[in-house]
Amino acid sequence: MKIAVDAMGGDNAPKEIVKGAIQAVKKYPHEIILVGDENKIQEFLKDEPDIKKFPLTIKHASEVIEMGEHPAEAVKNKKDSSIVVATHMVKDGEADAVFSAGSTGAAVSAAQLILKRIHGVNRPAIATPIPSPKGVTLMLDSGANVDSKPEHLLQSGIMGALYAEHVFGIKNPKVGLLNIGEEDTKGNELVKEAYKLFQDVKTINFCGNAEGRDIPEGHFDVVVCDGFVGNVVLKFGEGLALTILKLIKEAIEDGGIAAKVGALLLTPALTSLAKRLDVSEYGGAPLLGVEGCCVIGHGSSDAKSICNAIGVAANYVKGNVLEHIKIGIS
Amino acid sequence: MKIAVDAMGGDNAPKEIVKGAIQAVKKYPHEIILVGDENKIQEFLKDEPDIKKFPLTIKHASEVIEMGEHPAEAVKNKKDSSIVVATHMVKDGEADAVFSAGSTGAAVSAAQLILKRIHGVNRPAIATPIPSPKGVTLMLDSGANVDSKPEHLLQSGIMGALYAEHVFGIKNPKVGLLNIGEEDTKGNELVKEAYKLFQDVKTINFCGNAEGRDIPEGHFDVVVCDGFVGNVVLKFGEGLALTILKLIKEAIEDGGIAAKVGALLLTPALTSLAKRLDVSEYGGAPLLGVEGCCVIGHGSSDAKSICNAIGVAANYVKGNVLEHIKIGIS
Repeated sequence: MKIAVDAMGGDNAPKEIVKGAIQAVKKYPHEIILVGDENKIQEFLKDEPDIKKFPLTIKHASEVIEMGEHPAEAVKNKKDSSIVVATHMVKDGEADAVFSAGSTGAAVSAAQLILKRIHGVNRPAIATPIPSPKGVTLMLDSGANVDSKPEHLLQSGIMGALYAEHVFGIKNPKVGLLNIGEEDTKGNELVKEAYKLFQDVKTINFCGNAEGRDIPEGHFDVVVCDGFVGNVVLKFGEGLALTILKLIKEAIEDGGIAAKVGALLLTPALTSLAKRLDVSEYGGAPLLGVEGCCVIGHGSSDAKSICNAIGVAANYVKGNVLEHIKIGIS
Repeated sequence: MKIAVDAMGGDNAPKEIVKGAIQAVKKYPHEIILVGDENKIQEFLKDEPDIKKFPLTIKHASEVIEMGEHPAEAVKNKKDSSIVVATHMVKDGEADAVFSAGSTGAAVSAAQLILKRIHGVNRPAIATPIPSPKGVTLMLDSGANVDSKPEHLLQSGIMGALYAEHVFGIKNPKVGLLNIGEEDTKGNELVKEAYKLFQDVKTINFCGNAEGRDIPEGHFDVVVCDGFVGNVVLKFGEGLALTILKLIKEAIEDGGIAAKVGALLLTPALTSLAKRLDVSEYGGAPLLGVEGCCVIGHGSSDAKSICNAIGVAANYVKGNVLEHIKIGIS
């Protein structure tokens, strides 16, 4: 299996991307192609003499799509940008998957314009795994599209259920529709219409409306929403978790010796918890509904996240997600 | 000042409501009228012999609107329900404010049908205070209405800014529009249109788009969104915070003696932090845009939350919020 990695995308690119790719190529039995500025990539490879033993190669791309650029225009204009070149490798069969921690909009646009949508899929969706005490909840769409129609939500539900089954190994995954109440009369026009469509589909295990709190509590395997709502929720959760952590650290620092000793004594107990809730354990979110595997990482990804995201891409390919969606959506 | 309290609304009603009202009447110089089943209310008052010294009275109401009922229909049909009777007291000048921790939909419907909307306000909005390291962020609408139009968001922004100024004492509060990116080209149709309206209004300090993470981080004083998005975000945040706390407690319990001692040593440092982030410190969210003060509490409110929410209602009245909104919206 060959995975094309956008070496230039992300707040910490190319350094952390290259480091993550080095970790991944040592961890997984897959070939990795770093796509981007060859000189800049080499700079972070030169301190790794033993890397030559591993199947890690570079494909040069001279341009970079920056965060502020208009995604679709940038993809059209910057033909030699790392994300465009990497996505073309999947299209041309030179790679089995593409991963980028750069501009999400650019990765989505490149996938839509180059790989194209799967026949029958109206809109692709980003499926973000959110850790919960019960395992993981897949939330989609978390930002590929806004102003969704009811049928887009239904397709997201079908694709998400297939992903949860074939990648997470969850049999008959519980699918919920994100709403503001449990009753089927609740919600906005979009969700009320989508509810009816979900009820009529027998191929997925639709369990009714999910409320916001059901996502972190893990009551559903798949939670479906419009990309605007999903993106807001994701960033809110990220900000909330980071804020709580920051304030706890400050409280410990201001709390004198007792607090510091207390924190030290608690560390072992909390370390495994932190690992359980660590979003970087997943590292990447697949874009479902396009003709190929495209995995998107957080802009702030570090090497560990990058390595794990490459694992996500490999699991997508191994799980035959693309074929399952093609059959499921037709 | 007289505050009518729906004694029958909430998961822990009437017990916690009565206990909260007792705390409030001892804490604040205001008169409190408990509205609901007189016998049931008396049951929780009888162990408080000294309560006769305080201005706490009962107004009997024979019916209760339950959580599952259709709000507008229930308000129309149950004329002697506690929330309807309490709201009528505000309408008739027998009380200055109404507070309920019962069905949010019923409280909103009662306010709209009995108090009516302020002239010029198209839709009222629930303004929920969310604690942040910098103080508090007011998010509205958090669930009074869905399928908002751009002008509804604008009115929410104006009303929220006036509330932040006259109740929280924030001069020139920073107003943000909840979106999925900072740039004004981002977002769904609703938010892009609303952005233009906000830019044209000179009476508020519009600071552009807010992202999900800006709410817990406290970068804005007021964040405006559609009620569907606000409600999902609020419940998601609640679920996330509770889940993190629950898992930390479990980790401490499973962590042996070292973890337990560590937790004990940390307790003083974390107690003041917990107080800072405690949502029950606010206790209630005002419904802005109706002809009177209506404050809505969480269904799970305990006595402390109820007491604080009564304080929220008093601050609304003291801050002349109603008059300020009437002037600001015209």
